[in-house]
Amino acid sequence: MTNFSMDMQVSFGDCDPAGIVYYPNFYRWIDRCFHALLRERLGGHAGLCKALGAQGLGLMEARMVFRSPAREGDKLSLEITGIDWADKSYTLAYRAHVGDRLVFEASETRGVFVPREDGRLRAGEVAGLRAMFES
Amino acid sequence: MTNFSMDMQVSFGDCDPAGIVYYPNFYRWIDRCFHALLRERLGGHAGLCKALGAQGLGLMEARMVFRSPAREGDKLSLEITGIDWADKSYTLAYRAHVGDRLVFEASETRGVFVPREDGRLRAGEVAGLRAMFES
Amino acid sequence: MTNFSMDMQVSFGDCDPAGIVYYPNFYRWIDRCFHALLRERLGGHAGLCKALGAQGLGLMEARMVFRSPAREGDKLSLEITGIDWADKSYTLAYRAHVGDRLVFEASETRGVFVPREDGRLRAGEVAGLRAMFES
Amino acid sequence: MTNFSMDMQVSFGDCDPAGIVYYPNFYRWIDRCFHALLRERLGGHAGLCKALGAQGLGLMEARMVFRSPAREGDKLSLEITGIDWADKSYTLAYRAHVGDRLVFEASETRGVFVPREDGRLRAGEVAGLRAMFES
Repeated sequence: MTNFSMDMQVSFGDCDPAGIVYYPNFYRWIDRCFHALLRERLGGHAGLCKALGAQGLGLMEARMVFRSPAREGDKLSLEITGIDWADKSYTLAYRAHVGDRLVFEASETRGVFVPREDGRLRAGEVAGLRAMFES
Repeated sequence: MTNFSMDMQVSFGDCDPAGIVYYPNFYRWIDRCFHALLRERLGGHAGLCKALGAQGLGLMEARMVFRSPAREGDKLSLEITGIDWADKSYTLAYRAHVGDRLVFEASETRGVFVPREDGRLRAGEVAGLRAMFES
Repeated sequence: MTNFSMDMQVSFGDCDPAGIVYYPNFYRWIDRCFHALLRERLGGHAGLCKALGAQGLGLMEARMVFRSPAREGDKLSLEITGIDWADKSYTLAYRAHVGDRLVFEASETRGVFVPREDGRLRAGEVAGLRAMFES
Repeated sequence: MTNFSMDMQVSFGDCDPAGIVYYPNFYRWIDRCFHALLRERLGGHAGLCKALGAQGLGLMEARMVFRSPAREGDKLSLEITGIDWADKSYTLAYRAHVGDRLVFEASETRGVFVPREDGRLRAGEVAGLRAMFES
């Protein structure tokens, strides 16, 4: 996979009383970036889940390191810089800049969640998803 | 129906760079109040939709008049003050105070959305929902 | 003023368990559109408030009519179709489409809020803002 | 410090098309929990910043491990289980349950951000904040 990127224009309502982006919004944006990647490369989350027999590609773990704040009017350049594949999970690496300035680095570890017999979900093999990303 | 009310504690992250609640959050809270009403009086949105053969109780129109701002630390008292029933819609009236001070007045007009033959949704009769509210 | 428009790509996380955009997000997007207008035409909210001696351009009233749902993957075209000016308020008209399909129509009535002697805010004259929009 | 806890009722609008809490909302809730702690024990974020000569108590790093999903109608019990103090940062540990079921574990590393001479922020000593927590 080559890198994937998108821009987010920081708006007034994304910011908190300190005048900087309220940090849960950064997670909304990396999740938005992941879903844009699915849509542009693999036909989108819904079709992909159907093809994989999965119920979702949800989160197992997330981590973010905040390097500098982003403010109203900033144009945030958001990149997925790589995906590490394990057997039953995969970890996306993210990075966001405003111009040359690093704003945050993040990772999301996600699964391919499939239904068990009792209706609860379990993390299934991710080889099928990996093959689609790499084909 | 008697009135329904709930409190929301305004937190730092609910507020914008002007230090007041970012107004889309008020809509999140009136929607939260509607769903709390469904849960406490009628068993919740999911069961109710099943009982009514509906796919959702979504919005047709919303209106809000902002009377004064709410800030971090304010305790917002949110009330549903009435429901007006039409044939294929019903309108909930809301009011929010911080102490004696009126913060906003609002209304939501909602439907009982049922699937058509072509899969799209149409607004169905609301008499069944009304009967449940009034029983 | 000529019209102003922007696109929003609807993402998975913008949608609710019914699979359609959770309606408070539509308000986030019309507010985002207003602030983009300020930024592109008038230098942005912060500088504009400073020039006008104002503390904010917040809401007095909002109204939205929901015509059809928007779903993950939809590209929402959002327009400001006009501004009506009163003495101490102005009303922005919005419209959103997915392709030819109308999704919502909305209005926001906003003020130019200036500090009173007691520190509370009052709605001031909007002529200064109007002149900037029309110059 | 003894533990701190609060409950969050999961509402329809907190959930995504998979019917489970959209994960950025969990961050909104741990941030809400931190600010509730400040308000109930130390007089609130604004007064605290003033007392410390700080501009904010923002994030340096956050991490969350998702153990099981939360759904509409679930009552989420959210706890701060401890604070680890370093010289220029402190790390809050969080845990959330629905009944006996663990939903997530998380940590937030925060600073006491003070203005530098050039106006940018730097992470200052946290001893003053620690003393207030431990008195």
